Amino acid sequence: MKRPTIIDIARRVGVSKAAVSYALNGRAGVSAATRERILDVAAQLGWDAAGPARTPAADRTGTIGLVLARPPQQIRAEPSVVHWMAGLEAALAEYGLSLHLALPPDEEAELGTYRSWAAERRVDGVIVTDLRTEDPRVPLLRELKLPAVVIGEHERVANVAVLRFAVAEEVRAVVAHLAELGHRRIGHVQGGVDLEHTERRSALLRAEVRERLGTDLVKAEAAVTEDGGVRATWRLLAADPPPTAIVYDDDVTAVASVARAAELDVRVPADLAVLSWQDSMLCRVVTPPVTALSRDVEDDAAAAVHLLLELIETGAADDLDVPPRVLMPRASTGGAG
Amino acid sequence: MKRPTIIDIARRVGVSKAAVSYALNGRAGVSAATRERILDVAAQLGWDAAGPARTPAADRTGTIGLVLARPPQQIRAEPSVVHWMAGLEAALAEYGLSLHLALPPDEEAELGTYRSWAAERRVDGVIVTDLRTEDPRVPLLRELKLPAVVIGEHERVANVAVLRFAVAEEVRAVVAHLAELGHRRIGHVQGGVDLEHTERRSALLRAEVRERLGTDLVKAEAAVTEDGGVRATWRLLAADPPPTAIVYDDDVTAVASVARAAELDVRVPADLAVLSWQDSMLCRVVTPPVTALSRDVEDDAAAAVHLLLELIETGAADDLDVPPRVLMPRASTGGAG
Repeated sequence: MKRPTIIDIARRVGVSKAAVSYALNGRAGVSAATRERILDVAAQLGWDAAGPARTPAADRTGTIGLVLARPPQQIRAEPSVVHWMAGLEAALAEYGLSLHLALPPDEEAELGTYRSWAAERRVDGVIVTDLRTEDPRVPLLRELKLPAVVIGEHERVANVAVLRFAVAEEVRAVVAHLAELGHRRIGHVQGGVDLEHTERRSALLRAEVRERLGTDLVKAEAAVTEDGGVRATWRLLAADPPPTAIVYDDDVTAVASVARAAELDVRVPADLAVLSWQDSMLCRVVTPPVTALSRDVEDDAAAAVHLLLELIETGAADDLDVPPRVLMPRASTGGAG
Repeated sequence: MKRPTIIDIARRVGVSKAAVSYALNGRAGVSAATRERILDVAAQLGWDAAGPARTPAADRTGTIGLVLARPPQQIRAEPSVVHWMAGLEAALAEYGLSLHLALPPDEEAELGTYRSWAAERRVDGVIVTDLRTEDPRVPLLRELKLPAVVIGEHERVANVAVLRFAVAEEVRAVVAHLAELGHRRIGHVQGGVDLEHTERRSALLRAEVRERLGTDLVKAEAAVTEDGGVRATWRLLAADPPPTAIVYDDDVTAVASVARAAELDVRVPADLAVLSWQDSMLCRVVTPPVTALSRDVEDDAAAAVHLLLELIETGAADDLDVPPRVLMPRASTGGAG
């Protein structure tokens, strides 16, 4: 006989999965009457409260921690952070969990936050985004024995699981697409520096362009804003010879450059092909629509939450490789009508 | 002599405002050495640690609470929630505060969350968004004596301050703009129901259209998604006679309807004028660009945080009226090139 899941119980009682999770975990927020109904149905269905991955320790807080040490203006500017947060919130809501979000001013305060959370048992585990090169957070979390999921390429350490992106595959797909369309000189507008994932992406892109096209990638850093994107594009177009295709780390800088192509004195895609590493409604509604790598960052956030819960419940979790983004050819590269 | 501010101290020491706030409030996250420098400079500048609005009580948590009882898919779909969150996070980061975010499954769990936060003194105060008609949260928060800022139209109660939008002025500006362009039959795509602010907006819009244009507003409810916007537009265009202008509560539904006008068998603005109650990059990059009410929701979030901090520090705060959004005429109403 199949073991019942939270979904089975929720369906039978006619409440949300989250309500069941609240009730089974003995947390506040469900009325005594509803809780009793849920526990009755769980017992009828043979829910094994003593089974693994099901018995929350009495000292659980039902709270996941996230520390964002970005400057406030950066939090405002970056749609990807914002979508990531929305995905995280949606995934936590599924489980009836809370999020404790700290926004310390610098790295020192950031590390201090993890220390005090661990000392005060304030959160059950943490999610670590924007992995930096030689990131001091990973050794600290290991030392604190705080269950953690790290987003990005990192070696596995005891209580820290890794959610890993398929950057190499994505780089190959991007360069193959541009090569097929006859491009040889490629530019890259990089949306962040000192971050493990953007640095790695840029390095892999440089290597692939060299190997496949025999040229050197030209690169410009950009603030992730409309003006930042246009300015970085200007800088790349000043190269001699200029690139015929530019790959942007994010949708805002890519779409701004397409929308303001006249200002940049180029036609897209005739003079310049534009490709965004991030798909969004912006890429679809601008004229011409922008070729993009499509991926649901909200799915990534959900995967990170699931991984962390597994780690918290069982004390162990395998690293997770998320599938590569899918290239959506559109008119901005001349790759589709 | 001018009383020094946190900014003066931050500038002098060469650290962020948030670091100063951390240090002055005796919270974790700043090193002993930095804290000492900050306190030294504060003393030199004559910082009055005993002044009002400056002495945090010893039992402060440095944490603000937010309870979002929306279903997860709605959190994902709505860009305005997401921008609101980003604004909130940016404002909290300015003060070195944390956010505790709970995502309960239903209203009962939502009220339970406030109760347990108050009992456990988990947060210093809360921000209440998406005010509902006859909202049970306000009397509860009053009873719990938890400092709170409510976003939307509500009468003032003891420990609950109100951040109020200038909806009536915005409605007059929108109807005046459409009237000047000769429109008489107006539609409204409403992005949420049972919410105090969308219901009030729709009622005021209906009254203003009746008074100024002598016609009845036609209304359709929409899920705040691209498809939701297009479907609601279809329903409105089926009216006999159909509206010649449609006002959308949000940018996603408005821009989707413009981008997919061919599918709807209309030309924008020749057959249908489109106006969005929310401005964004989407409104600017679509063809034709969409006339919108421009307002920085992130500024609203910052204003809410400031209001709440005042309430927490001093025990009292006046309600705050935020200025009306500014109408940005663009080509989608034929109101500008």
